[in-house]
Amino acid sequence: MTSVATDVHRHEAVLATYRARVWPEIERRLPTGRPARWLYEPLADYPRRPGKGLRAALCMAACAAHGGDDEAALGAAAAIEILHNAFLVHDDIEDGSQWRRGEPTLHEREGVPLALNVGDALAVLSFDVLRASSRHLGRRVGRLVLDEFTTAIWRTLEGQALELGWRRDGVTDLTADDYLELVLLKSSWYTTIAPLRIGTLIGSDGEAPLRHITRFAVLLGAAFQLTDDVLNLAGHRAAYGKEIAGDLREGKRTLMLLHALANADEPERAAVVAALHRAGAADATVAQLADLIDRHGSVDFAREFARGVADAAAAAFDDAFADAAQPPAAAVIGDLVTYVVERNR
Amino acid sequence: MTSVATDVHRHEAVLATYRARVWPEIERRLPTGRPARWLYEPLADYPRRPGKGLRAALCMAACAAHGGDDEAALGAAAAIEILHNAFLVHDDIEDGSQWRRGEPTLHEREGVPLALNVGDALAVLSFDVLRASSRHLGRRVGRLVLDEFTTAIWRTLEGQALELGWRRDGVTDLTADDYLELVLLKSSWYTTIAPLRIGTLIGSDGEAPLRHITRFAVLLGAAFQLTDDVLNLAGHRAAYGKEIAGDLREGKRTLMLLHALANADEPERAAVVAALHRAGAADATVAQLADLIDRHGSVDFAREFARGVADAAAAAFDDAFADAAQPPAAAVIGDLVTYVVERNR
Repeated sequence: MTSVATDVHRHEAVLATYRARVWPEIERRLPTGRPARWLYEPLADYPRRPGKGLRAALCMAACAAHGGDDEAALGAAAAIEILHNAFLVHDDIEDGSQWRRGEPTLHEREGVPLALNVGDALAVLSFDVLRASSRHLGRRVGRLVLDEFTTAIWRTLEGQALELGWRRDGVTDLTADDYLELVLLKSSWYTTIAPLRIGTLIGSDGEAPLRHITRFAVLLGAAFQLTDDVLNLAGHRAAYGKEIAGDLREGKRTLMLLHALANADEPERAAVVAALHRAGAADATVAQLADLIDRHGSVDFAREFARGVADAAAAAFDDAFADAAQPPAAAVIGDLVTYVVERNR
Repeated sequence: MTSVATDVHRHEAVLATYRARVWPEIERRLPTGRPARWLYEPLADYPRRPGKGLRAALCMAACAAHGGDDEAALGAAAAIEILHNAFLVHDDIEDGSQWRRGEPTLHEREGVPLALNVGDALAVLSFDVLRASSRHLGRRVGRLVLDEFTTAIWRTLEGQALELGWRRDGVTDLTADDYLELVLLKSSWYTTIAPLRIGTLIGSDGEAPLRHITRFAVLLGAAFQLTDDVLNLAGHRAAYGKEIAGDLREGKRTLMLLHALANADEPERAAVVAALHRAGAADATVAQLADLIDRHGSVDFAREFARGVADAAAAAFDDAFADAAQPPAAAVIGDLVTYVVERNR
């Protein structure tokens, strides 16, 4: 029997083996040209900051689990990671975030106008890489993969709109269901659903059913994002790489905040709702929100909730991968269920 | 013999016939869904503000001029106009513009975060529309059209980066050649080059040579943008739909500004260069720049320059469309040469 920390290290080592294959592919695809200083150099900034590589690993392992050579999914995996970086650049602008993967955000470095433009370029690049890699797939599967990719983008933009709209308009009458819908859209779709479905399509030449895989992906994505929220509030800055409590400052409606609000007494609730209506939360507001979350045990609640979702994901995994053509590849995916809730970054 | 004003009205009537066919196609393609208020409703805002429809007309007329049914280029024309709207949304954020087509810009209405997200959505929509319309084209031509489309996006983003970089870093040692390269990248590529090349590819089933068409498109695009710059400074706000002298406020390096700088004496030049180094030009700076441009006759210089480029475009048109399969369609394109320099909006 191994400890949780040992398991996390082992899973990170597995992710690292996928990163070691996908990052050179991304690097190879990063275009060069003019203007270098204002476009092509800053374009490489986020892709060169080491991420977890979770999305690439899910895509390639799903391909292999369905009997494919996971090399066939390498281009799609690279495209998904580039798309992730495109989202991060625009996200950071939209949220006014200051830190990303331990360094200043791109718009802090380059200013909003150039960073916005670089985010656009990363999005086009992700399409270029996906299209180039889809040529080897045959017309039907290539088209299905592109459809999955654009669907994931639409869902992500819908999720972003929801989160930004709640914040802009001071919406606070939200339930756990609202939060889970938000997570499904803004995070799970491109983090777990699209990578797993695309890997499955490629590995099975479009033949494998996607229903069970999708159910598993939805739960895995929710467990991932719930943990991300907890780490944002309670993690260690050096490991996490973003500003701690950035979510509070940005007025994000996390499950913790909704839990604390639901359990607050009326005067507390009124004060916090008023604070959330003010744009650009000041330090005092952040402290107030953190205190409320603390007093109502909302971090522990969210952690437990994440573990419950992870348990459901583990059960869904068994349904989805019972007949895996390559059990070791399926095991890589199964192991990520524990990893996403136990990780510290 | 007709007057210039009559000609402009006639050309606008021709453009209106294309708009009347393309706008319903765009409208039909605008997605609906949730969240409506924060994504799908604002997404329709710019596409529903009447534009000139120049890009769509060029694409469809080029298709017909090469013997195709211009209906085959309708989807591509719609995709190009949607892409144009996507660029406008992000452009307006990057430039801090306040007016677009006679109404407040999208980020003035919705705030920067939601507007940025809507711009992303319009870009994905343009791909969706292009992909859907390319299915009727056969695999080879469909692929060529998608390649043209993504190439145009890359060039546009390079042009944006150049313009934003010059402004951010206070670059002022620029020549007319620098300006013309900027225009080629940021404006001509998606306004004239891609529409004409894509229309030609569709109309000729990928068979027509593109060299002469491209040369014509480069010149037409330059004449168009030069005139746009003149209208920005000297146009009538009601007709033009943007804030007059917005370019000066945004510190844009137009040919007029470069001409005035080149003709200024040293103290004048130093004062203006210092002003251009300050971000967010104040009213005093705008007045100073306008005065300099006025005193050196730079607006007339730019108008003459635009007419010279238009003359070259007219000559290039004869090379490109001498053997047009459908001369009336070619004539629509030829007539636009006068239109782009004589228009008042």
